[in-house]
Amino acid sequence: MNNVIDFINVNRERYLDELKALLAIPSISALPEHAPDVRRCAEWCADEMRRVGLQGVELIETPGNPVVYGEWKGAEGAPTILFYGHYDVQPVDPLDLWTTPPFEATVRDGEIYARGAADDKGQVFMHLKAIEAHIKQNGRLPVNIKIILEGEEEVGSVNLDNFVKANREKLAADVVVISDSAMFARGVPSICYGLRGLVYFQIDLRGSSTDLHSGVFGGAVANPAMVLAQMLAQCKDRSGNIKIAGFYDDVVPLQDEERKAWATLPFNEKQYRKDFGIPKVHGEPGYTTLERTWARPTFEVNGLLSGFTGEGAKTVLPAVAMAKVSMRLVPNQDPDKIAKLFEDYLAKIAPKTVEVKVTRMHGGKPWMASFDNKYIQAAGRAIEQGFGRAPVFTREGGSIPVVATFQEELGLPSVLFGVGLPDENAHAPNEKLDCGNFQSGIISSAILYEEIGKIR
Amino acid sequence: MNNVIDFINVNRERYLDELKALLAIPSISALPEHAPDVRRCAEWCADEMRRVGLQGVELIETPGNPVVYGEWKGAEGAPTILFYGHYDVQPVDPLDLWTTPPFEATVRDGEIYARGAADDKGQVFMHLKAIEAHIKQNGRLPVNIKIILEGEEEVGSVNLDNFVKANREKLAADVVVISDSAMFARGVPSICYGLRGLVYFQIDLRGSSTDLHSGVFGGAVANPAMVLAQMLAQCKDRSGNIKIAGFYDDVVPLQDEERKAWATLPFNEKQYRKDFGIPKVHGEPGYTTLERTWARPTFEVNGLLSGFTGEGAKTVLPAVAMAKVSMRLVPNQDPDKIAKLFEDYLAKIAPKTVEVKVTRMHGGKPWMASFDNKYIQAAGRAIEQGFGRAPVFTREGGSIPVVATFQEELGLPSVLFGVGLPDENAHAPNEKLDCGNFQSGIISSAILYEEIGKIR
Repeated sequence: MNNVIDFINVNRERYLDELKALLAIPSISALPEHAPDVRRCAEWCADEMRRVGLQGVELIETPGNPVVYGEWKGAEGAPTILFYGHYDVQPVDPLDLWTTPPFEATVRDGEIYARGAADDKGQVFMHLKAIEAHIKQNGRLPVNIKIILEGEEEVGSVNLDNFVKANREKLAADVVVISDSAMFARGVPSICYGLRGLVYFQIDLRGSSTDLHSGVFGGAVANPAMVLAQMLAQCKDRSGNIKIAGFYDDVVPLQDEERKAWATLPFNEKQYRKDFGIPKVHGEPGYTTLERTWARPTFEVNGLLSGFTGEGAKTVLPAVAMAKVSMRLVPNQDPDKIAKLFEDYLAKIAPKTVEVKVTRMHGGKPWMASFDNKYIQAAGRAIEQGFGRAPVFTREGGSIPVVATFQEELGLPSVLFGVGLPDENAHAPNEKLDCGNFQSGIISSAILYEEIGKIR
Repeated sequence: MNNVIDFINVNRERYLDELKALLAIPSISALPEHAPDVRRCAEWCADEMRRVGLQGVELIETPGNPVVYGEWKGAEGAPTILFYGHYDVQPVDPLDLWTTPPFEATVRDGEIYARGAADDKGQVFMHLKAIEAHIKQNGRLPVNIKIILEGEEEVGSVNLDNFVKANREKLAADVVVISDSAMFARGVPSICYGLRGLVYFQIDLRGSSTDLHSGVFGGAVANPAMVLAQMLAQCKDRSGNIKIAGFYDDVVPLQDEERKAWATLPFNEKQYRKDFGIPKVHGEPGYTTLERTWARPTFEVNGLLSGFTGEGAKTVLPAVAMAKVSMRLVPNQDPDKIAKLFEDYLAKIAPKTVEVKVTRMHGGKPWMASFDNKYIQAAGRAIEQGFGRAPVFTREGGSIPVVATFQEELGLPSVLFGVGLPDENAHAPNEKLDCGNFQSGIISSAILYEEIGKIR
């Protein structure tokens, strides 16, 4: 292994230069005008996969953007890793908040700034460079690997489930490795063993055929904006408990060991409030902030719109009111079951004075791994060597639906090993990746292949 | 009087032609690009007031648009009417919903269609033509009259209070006459003896310095959209009762005679629901629809805005949430006192997890006249002769703050005698005025001067 690590250390500067070329391609999947850039990025990734020594490299077409595929299958008897990442990026608005142009990667104070630096090009590239180091130095990898890079992660991975279902055999493996997340804090590498699921809805209320005059009609007809407020207030009480009947039935209680382990993590609530301008934290009684975001389900209003919202005053009694709401789910809540409970609850609490339309949008299942599984333990050893510190085991409040897809469709566990930082601005201006974490991530990835390769 | 009425009947066609010229001026006070039109309209009105025989006609400048003033003071010993109207009009958007252009008045099926036809140019013109008829036929009016036409009614009459205060002596009179409202129903002329007041607020909540990711933060910080919903739900319960402490304290109970009189009015709830697409009427328990809108105060949400409101789903935990809310007030609720009660109530129910900013916007006092006062009785006789049917006495749910101003600043009662119809589209496309009601309105106005002139 030492010759591999030496190679990685010697090539540090080259890696950054090459990464800049990848970051220069504006592969924004959400914007149709960037479709040619998205495809150009897929081709760039395929060429790079060939350069580092992967085999069978191809662009696999989907109804949307292509999946880039590559493999190396020469490690007989060793497990097979299915590596998942994505080459598409978020839009860059508002552009004027970027210190340097989003597609001209710039290193400042040990961080490389560009759209996609952390999410996910930098972390994908980390693995390609680890593969390169093994193959260049030893002519082989210590593990079998299949790589799929998606081009639609930032637009909801709409074609990925079908892709996975249609390619079960091609994707057969022992474990999934994903580097598309952040570590717990600077200097605190982490492995994530749990994610929340999601159900998302739009609620539309109509109280009359057109907007009415609030003087002429006020007091005699239901106001859909008020009815909406009353209905939302019936979904979650002021103390933070969700009131949807049956909502908590399938929630796996937080284990004492988890609570103890999380309590030792370096979380500073005062700093958290300061960093995000939060007057006072708030959540379900009896849980800490980490517990509330990692292990408890939520009910959030994501958007509200009704009536007059411009400057000044307009005495309108709105005809319609709209809310976007979503629930983050934890094991073993099932999105379909929760969606049904919510729809039933709304039907029960909705007054007959308004028409109610409930539209279910996207969603995904929660996921949790046993963090003593052998792959996660292997990742723990790799990170400890690469970062000089044993990782902490965390869960995350967000959702990566593909993890549940791999579990369900391919029966595979996932190892979530991310080297971003919590302030990496993944979906915001001035996205960045710490150059030291990038380098340690390449070393850790190289060791991870070695460690998983030993598993028999 | 007969020669005056004969004159009015003979000139019917001419009145419509002249009104069309007034309606051709796009005096939209809300749109700065129409400022020259607004002034041109003021000058047109002044010229017309001179033509009909008024004296002392002038444009009185204000910080905004000028007030057009004219008078006739030759009826020694008779009372003096202060007539109030406005020459500005509402914007015309959406233009594509107009059957004929808003500033090319067109007669169809006995209605004249144009912006301002009912609100208020047509009703102002009705009085100018009644004055003309008296002066042309008899060389005099049977009553003294002072006319003020405002150019900012559609933008909140922002300079009118100061104008009235600064011109107390010039405006001294015995009674105010206003024709800027609708009759109860087609064929049911009415006199309005009560109006609701108004207080209007914007509520802004902030839960964090920027929008947050609903996965990463959801469950651990207050969601300002949800807090807003909960606060609004605490302002009015589901049965329709307003929960602000002390809100109802000063409400004058509805009198039994009023309830009895209103119960005889031709109001068809089924048709009302059909006309406005209302699934089911809703309001304060124990009151009818007319009682709820005319005699009971309200709490309405006029607008809501928070987070993501576009197509699709965005998992944002909004930083801010905004509501516009207003309360219609009834005698003897005082806007300042109610505003204070509301602000205190919000301060009491607002959690410490969000920053709350409450901004008071415009408002006005409720108003109610005793409907057996001599001026209202005179108007009743005039309407009965002009329309061939005795008027009904109604209140209105809307607010005309100037009526309270005349009461307070000049000590004057008001007679609200409107000839619009409930479906006249005053602030909507295809505004119209019934030509027959316009003609009957001219006759009634001419008789009203005669009747008020007799009061000693």
